[in-house]
Amino acid sequence: MKPLRLGIAGLGHVGCGLVELVEAQARLRLPAQVSIRGVTARSRNRNRSVDVSGYDWFDSAEALAADPDVDVFVELIGGSDGPAKLAVEAALRAGKPVVTANKALIAEHGMALARLADENGVDLLFEAAVAGGVPIVRTLRDSLSGIEVRRVSGILNGTCNFLTSEMLATGRSYADVLAEAQKLGFAEADPTLDVSGTDAAHKIAILSAIAFSANLDFSKVSIGGVEDLDLLDLTFAERLGYTVKLIAEGVLTDDGVVCRVEPKVLEASHPLAQIHGSLNSVRVEGEPLGAIVVSGPGAGGGPTASAVMGDVSKLFRTGRRTAFGHAEHHLIREFAVAADTESAPWFLRVRLADVSGALASLSDALAKEGVSIDKLLQDSAHEDGTAPVAIVTHQCGRANMARAVNQLNQLSSIAGKPRLIRIEMDH
Amino acid sequence: MKPLRLGIAGLGHVGCGLVELVEAQARLRLPAQVSIRGVTARSRNRNRSVDVSGYDWFDSAEALAADPDVDVFVELIGGSDGPAKLAVEAALRAGKPVVTANKALIAEHGMALARLADENGVDLLFEAAVAGGVPIVRTLRDSLSGIEVRRVSGILNGTCNFLTSEMLATGRSYADVLAEAQKLGFAEADPTLDVSGTDAAHKIAILSAIAFSANLDFSKVSIGGVEDLDLLDLTFAERLGYTVKLIAEGVLTDDGVVCRVEPKVLEASHPLAQIHGSLNSVRVEGEPLGAIVVSGPGAGGGPTASAVMGDVSKLFRTGRRTAFGHAEHHLIREFAVAADTESAPWFLRVRLADVSGALASLSDALAKEGVSIDKLLQDSAHEDGTAPVAIVTHQCGRANMARAVNQLNQLSSIAGKPRLIRIEMDH
Repeated sequence: MKPLRLGIAGLGHVGCGLVELVEAQARLRLPAQVSIRGVTARSRNRNRSVDVSGYDWFDSAEALAADPDVDVFVELIGGSDGPAKLAVEAALRAGKPVVTANKALIAEHGMALARLADENGVDLLFEAAVAGGVPIVRTLRDSLSGIEVRRVSGILNGTCNFLTSEMLATGRSYADVLAEAQKLGFAEADPTLDVSGTDAAHKIAILSAIAFSANLDFSKVSIGGVEDLDLLDLTFAERLGYTVKLIAEGVLTDDGVVCRVEPKVLEASHPLAQIHGSLNSVRVEGEPLGAIVVSGPGAGGGPTASAVMGDVSKLFRTGRRTAFGHAEHHLIREFAVAADTESAPWFLRVRLADVSGALASLSDALAKEGVSIDKLLQDSAHEDGTAPVAIVTHQCGRANMARAVNQLNQLSSIAGKPRLIRIEMDH
Repeated sequence: MKPLRLGIAGLGHVGCGLVELVEAQARLRLPAQVSIRGVTARSRNRNRSVDVSGYDWFDSAEALAADPDVDVFVELIGGSDGPAKLAVEAALRAGKPVVTANKALIAEHGMALARLADENGVDLLFEAAVAGGVPIVRTLRDSLSGIEVRRVSGILNGTCNFLTSEMLATGRSYADVLAEAQKLGFAEADPTLDVSGTDAAHKIAILSAIAFSANLDFSKVSIGGVEDLDLLDLTFAERLGYTVKLIAEGVLTDDGVVCRVEPKVLEASHPLAQIHGSLNSVRVEGEPLGAIVVSGPGAGGGPTASAVMGDVSKLFRTGRRTAFGHAEHHLIREFAVAADTESAPWFLRVRLADVSGALASLSDALAKEGVSIDKLLQDSAHEDGTAPVAIVTHQCGRANMARAVNQLNQLSSIAGKPRLIRIEMDH
């Protein structure tokens, strides 16, 4: 397969993340090789997380888009109009596929740009424009093309979700938490696009246009934000068993496709109520599917750049991908049998016989194998005379635990078989 | 684009679900038309949920696979060997793409079949083989090809997850709950493949082969099930703040790719701990992504058939899909402005001034607009002399609520602006 030469316009977090991914592509699973033909950004000499001095610099995005040696134009400039739009149009007119992370551009001008792409017979891809590293655009368009979607909804702005999560967790006001988020880089210096709901509205409009085969008309979207949420609203909702989240939704109604972004009160058991901090999550409901939920990092240079790279990998047209996606230039790995060397905390459950010193003999046996106890729960004896005991251990090797269980099997103070289960921590 | 003619082998729940989807394809978003060239199954005269008498019947899956008018062979027979394998091989040798939902076949013979597909230059697709309606195979292979996967894990057997969820919820034994699940059709008459962990092992082996560019070797997979889980294990784990789930995982280690299926104790905050009943969920961890989680219905005729259809839609090779996936034969919808006609329960928060009759005037104003109160929470007055009140209403129109809020704005007993938020129930 022929390598693809990228023209990268925009070198912020996502652009730099993409350059890093191209340089580390041996670790990825691309169908073939990707190279960088040239780069451009507003300022050439800004301090960046990667050194781009080895790449050809173009003075304008439009010039890069039109360069005959660029196979794929990657637009990471941002903004619904101005240089981003001009460069994307130039690339499509020059018959080059475009990959973009620009939600404002696609939400405001997506229909016209899709037509232009069609007229020129090239792809316009924007996985990274919706929910960063969460793979929902292509999934909805292709993998879920066999379902009839009734509703698509989600938490699509990590800043808003971080603000409301943090207000509730710390009991602090919206203004306080926003100021801290700005200091930490979780919110922009001008947070208006995020907190007003506009950013989430861009994303839900794009998803709805795909889900419902609809003509995207951003002017019809109803938009509300989190700016006037009071801590009191969040705490009272929680005390009544609910969670407040900024929810974006697109619904198929008799009047057409209705998109709305607004804070909502969710039942605590609602799948979107579990999405905390800066995560994004999208729920697709349809027939004959029921519902699926896709969650993950909705922003950030790395995750968003990986979504751009996923789109780029779709553009190797000349070859079919193998069934498992393997390619000859990949490092092909082998399956291996599980070793018992891994270390973890363990859950150990036994039944103690009703004899004196039973618990002591249990803890002695564990100590002998170097197993130390973190938590222990013993119930009073059941009708059969045995008392159930559950132990949570500190980190310990699987082999040690197996030896300890062998010891326990030989103790007369242990009734029946001990049960050993590995514990997986949340991370 | 040319229509695709399917040969469907196997007419169980998934096969019948697929026939229904083909017949209702106007409601889907396929790139072009799909038709049924012929069908086959073990028994011609079985009672089925769809009438297949209008389709050409073939006496063997192999004959159907070899028919010159079949463009895509769909294998829904099941079983790692026997007629399913013979027919898939016949189709690939005849240069026809294959779509299958057969996890045992792909886990046991996937590498050889992928080679055969390559040699014949055709696709072998198996989205439906892993986690039914959850779109993870193509997402992992294509959308996530720009990340380096470190670990893929999940809840991949709905029967096991239903059994453990149900034991804990009802306090009943494994044997009791299994017997009930069999009666309700949630577990097979012979549940061995499911409860032993083998089914989940098939699925994690397939995902691992994709995620790590690995040579799938099913004999290396370590397999444990839920058959010997005691209710006591589940309840004690819960009392210690954990949840027990059958977890399948594939990890990249220095020795190679290690796949393991076993019950695990999860921290209650772990994303997979929230997956209840027969749902499936897959978590992909990698760089520079972090982690994404995809959840949904892991089985069932409809969801699995929709995954088959998603694969079929990939096989329309002659045309590029438009940016939003729209096609001329789709019903193209329009965006519409949100109306205020929808009915929902509402969360209403106000601050009551410290005057007598304040609560009465509040509830009067609501009653006048037909808003009835489900729950009410009033705190004692804050330092500013106002007492916060939150109300959860019964179902009520948005317009009614807006009028009620207007009324409240005019009451001297209400301080500041009332806050109205729509409640979304879990469903």
